[in-house]
Amino acid sequence: MYIEKVKSSRLTPESLEIKTFGNTFADHMLVCNYKDGVWGEAKIIPFQEMSFSPAMQAIHYGQACFEGMKAYKDENGDVFMFRPEKNFERINNSAIRLNMPPVPKEVFMDGLKALLDIDRDWVPPTYGMALYLRPFIFATEPMITARSSEEFMFCVITAVAPDYYAKPLRVKIADKYSRSANGGVGYAKAAGNYAASFYPTKLAREEGFDQVIWTDASTHEFIEEAGTMNVFVRINDTLITAPISERILNGVTRNSLINIAKHNGWKVEERPIKVSEMKAAHKDGSLKEVFGCGTAVVLNTFSAIGYPDETLDLADMPMEESWGKQLKKQLMDIQNNKSEDPFGWRVKVEKNLVNTL
Amino acid sequence: MYIEKVKSSRLTPESLEIKTFGNTFADHMLVCNYKDGVWGEAKIIPFQEMSFSPAMQAIHYGQACFEGMKAYKDENGDVFMFRPEKNFERINNSAIRLNMPPVPKEVFMDGLKALLDIDRDWVPPTYGMALYLRPFIFATEPMITARSSEEFMFCVITAVAPDYYAKPLRVKIADKYSRSANGGVGYAKAAGNYAASFYPTKLAREEGFDQVIWTDASTHEFIEEAGTMNVFVRINDTLITAPISERILNGVTRNSLINIAKHNGWKVEERPIKVSEMKAAHKDGSLKEVFGCGTAVVLNTFSAIGYPDETLDLADMPMEESWGKQLKKQLMDIQNNKSEDPFGWRVKVEKNLVNTL
Repeated sequence: MYIEKVKSSRLTPESLEIKTFGNTFADHMLVCNYKDGVWGEAKIIPFQEMSFSPAMQAIHYGQACFEGMKAYKDENGDVFMFRPEKNFERINNSAIRLNMPPVPKEVFMDGLKALLDIDRDWVPPTYGMALYLRPFIFATEPMITARSSEEFMFCVITAVAPDYYAKPLRVKIADKYSRSANGGVGYAKAAGNYAASFYPTKLAREEGFDQVIWTDASTHEFIEEAGTMNVFVRINDTLITAPISERILNGVTRNSLINIAKHNGWKVEERPIKVSEMKAAHKDGSLKEVFGCGTAVVLNTFSAIGYPDETLDLADMPMEESWGKQLKKQLMDIQNNKSEDPFGWRVKVEKNLVNTL
Repeated sequence: MYIEKVKSSRLTPESLEIKTFGNTFADHMLVCNYKDGVWGEAKIIPFQEMSFSPAMQAIHYGQACFEGMKAYKDENGDVFMFRPEKNFERINNSAIRLNMPPVPKEVFMDGLKALLDIDRDWVPPTYGMALYLRPFIFATEPMITARSSEEFMFCVITAVAPDYYAKPLRVKIADKYSRSANGGVGYAKAAGNYAASFYPTKLAREEGFDQVIWTDASTHEFIEEAGTMNVFVRINDTLITAPISERILNGVTRNSLINIAKHNGWKVEERPIKVSEMKAAHKDGSLKEVFGCGTAVVLNTFSAIGYPDETLDLADMPMEESWGKQLKKQLMDIQNNKSEDPFGWRVKVEKNLVNTL
């Protein structure tokens, strides 16, 4: 692995005290180019602008996908990734659906470890904060024929993720717009899926909501995702979430919460859940809580659900009653090495690893 | 308008004799940046690589759309655009659906005219060739939060389009994959729509087909588009094409062919057309021809249609019997100023226009 370190770090104490996410990038990035049918050498270089042709395929035809992950620092200063194998599998599932070459496992795994080893000072020591990892693959061939690119770049950039107070969200059930359809790319973290969601989300915001609960494109009868999160509905003492399908993202946080809930002895059902079922449960008092989950927010409870005809309010529950809040704490404790890890999910980033790669 | 011309042109006689489309770019490009809520000054500069942050929003969240247009040169050396107003309207419809700011009309129209005036020597004088124009808008803000960008670039690049012999295509009817759904972005020229189509197209190619005929995502019963083209089915003496909807691109070529066909006194129906209707018409001999159309190819006839259980062959028809071939010639004659233009579609690019802008 080729490594070029920065001459002097941009890291300051303020870097790790930021309050907004998305543009406080660590010192280094990983790049690896695909050309002539093969992936080249992975390189760690200073985070920097790159030069592209205005004909770069990704900005014309959207051949691009990404992953979202986080690295955590425990009280001893050790750095951990969380279930990176899941993200490795998923980025390649996304790549295949978009006709892009899968990234080799050693490029992905060793690249992430080396990058985190070099930039370990950028992983905030504060519980609740993390260094967000953004692996992505995009088409770089400079050509405007509407066909698959033959050149790609795999890249990893990282950004400090603050501990922002996740306020309960008001969500609106989609009855016109849709996020994905059978036979489409909804299960992939395809760049275009996100662009398609911004306008419906903006319209929902204008009506006083924070996010959209996506429903199936054919009938709008079934709950699929919320914003960029998977959704859980708790009716009495059963947690229900939509099953993984070609329309629904196979969320790592979703899967982790299901495992923790089952470990707690709680009942979990992965099955289609109707918009109308959630409404009926609200009416008869059996709807206890509804929440979304994902790497960025971990878990966000919902305080209101907007139906076309009425908005249903959900009361905030104390920790001892809320499965959502308990699950969030259990998950974060595992991620931050504050509790046992019965699932074997943490992956420690060894020090001075770079010299061995 | 700021204009910086190349010191010396890259144009050679060979540039206008190329046989493959997509990477023979003319000397200049148009760029215009959107920041702080306003579009800045449009600039014509030498075609060149540009520097972007690896966090550029478009390659993460796919906020990007484009247009495809052509400029033609007639026997007098005059240069014409074809219905540029339609592309101007559509790029802004696409932009709105993707939550991007519409491009001002003068930036789009004056920009295209000035670019074509400066690069008019790049417009091939050969009938059947053209200079392809690629206006596009993409998100440039360097930030990886999953939200709409607040910075964008509008850009126009151009590439020489050869007169390639459009061989009749073998097309496969989609029975699993889908291109768009109700409530989605199928009607927009959104970058992500194209990436989603490459893998199903690759699978169709492995089965001996050239393109996919997209059907509706819910039932796969209705014909929508083919590859990146609108589709026309001729049954006896009626041309049928799917109506414009939120799933189907409002094609300029589609609209032009409908107008020419009606002008010829031919019957045209814009209505949903079932996969099964086309098959039944083939069985009873009333299916005369099926073709796709779009700016790049103009019109492509289909020689075979693959159903899950059988592949139906379509005989090649001579010009005097084929409505498709006649429509293609009529359209190209208008575009190239070889015939009257009863519709007022041609827009001449005046010489030395640049000095007045």
